[in-house]
Amino acid sequence: MKHKSFAKETCAIARSLNVVGEWWNLLIVREAFSGITKFADFQKRLGIARNILTVRLRQLVDDGILQTGKNGGERFEYTLTDKGRDLIYTLVAMSQWGSKWLFTSGKPSPRLVDKQDLLELSSLQLRSRNGRILGNNDVEFLKTHGKH
Amino acid sequence: MKHKSFAKETCAIARSLNVVGEWWNLLIVREAFSGITKFADFQKRLGIARNILTVRLRQLVDDGILQTGKNGGERFEYTLTDKGRDLIYTLVAMSQWGSKWLFTSGKPSPRLVDKQDLLELSSLQLRSRNGRILGNNDVEFLKTHGKH
Repeated sequence: MKHKSFAKETCAIARSLNVVGEWWNLLIVREAFSGITKFADFQKRLGIARNILTVRLRQLVDDGILQTGKNGGERFEYTLTDKGRDLIYTLVAMSQWGSKWLFTSGKPSPRLVDKQDLLELSSLQLRSRNGRILGNNDVEFLKTHGKH
Repeated sequence: MKHKSFAKETCAIARSLNVVGEWWNLLIVREAFSGITKFADFQKRLGIARNILTVRLRQLVDDGILQTGKNGGERFEYTLTDKGRDLIYTLVAMSQWGSKWLFTSGKPSPRLVDKQDLLELSSLQLRSRNGRILGNNDVEFLKTHGKH
């Protein structure tokens, strides 16, 4: 299904969805965070068709989320850019939401952990400008200008 | 395009995408956070076709993200459940990522603010179990069991 493009939206959420809203994109980014760099490995881990993976990887490179380089041999390697690494907050938010609400039985895998102690991260917290912790009823969307 | 279903995935991110990965869903949730409750208002704000909106709202109710109720008059009102309100972390993460990386010119709207002082939220931070602030290179996905 072709979506309406949100690229010109003034809402940062809509623009983000325009870039990473395609399911596979965030799962490819998840694999890249796990250290996967090669086409064949992405394909094997995700069980995604070659033609779809080709399009998705090219798009992620065009959007500046992945970068390509050759590492010694012949094969291209895909690694996260700074822009791509910054998607960790979105992945953590989705992972914590899913873990809390979508696992009535069983446990999620993989778990997102601190590299240093291999313990799971703390839950994300919303904080005001001056550092107060906010609940999910304490925030609102303030329309400043433009349509959204 | 029909996606492969990730409902049985053991990865919490994949399961979350299965529920909210459809673009419209997160934008409908964004509107619900802005106080929109009526079908006609969702439609007007999002510029979405009636038939698509009908399907999306029904799915969000089935998934326990929105709930319906009548408020005085005849019209159904859609409001966020606790599970739906908990998506604020995902919205904040996407909003902050988009604001940082997808606005080379212009400014995002709406802004996510603290209701109390109407100032924008602080950037989300990743923290270890004992509260240390972590950078986006300090976390990893640890496979514990099951396939993902």
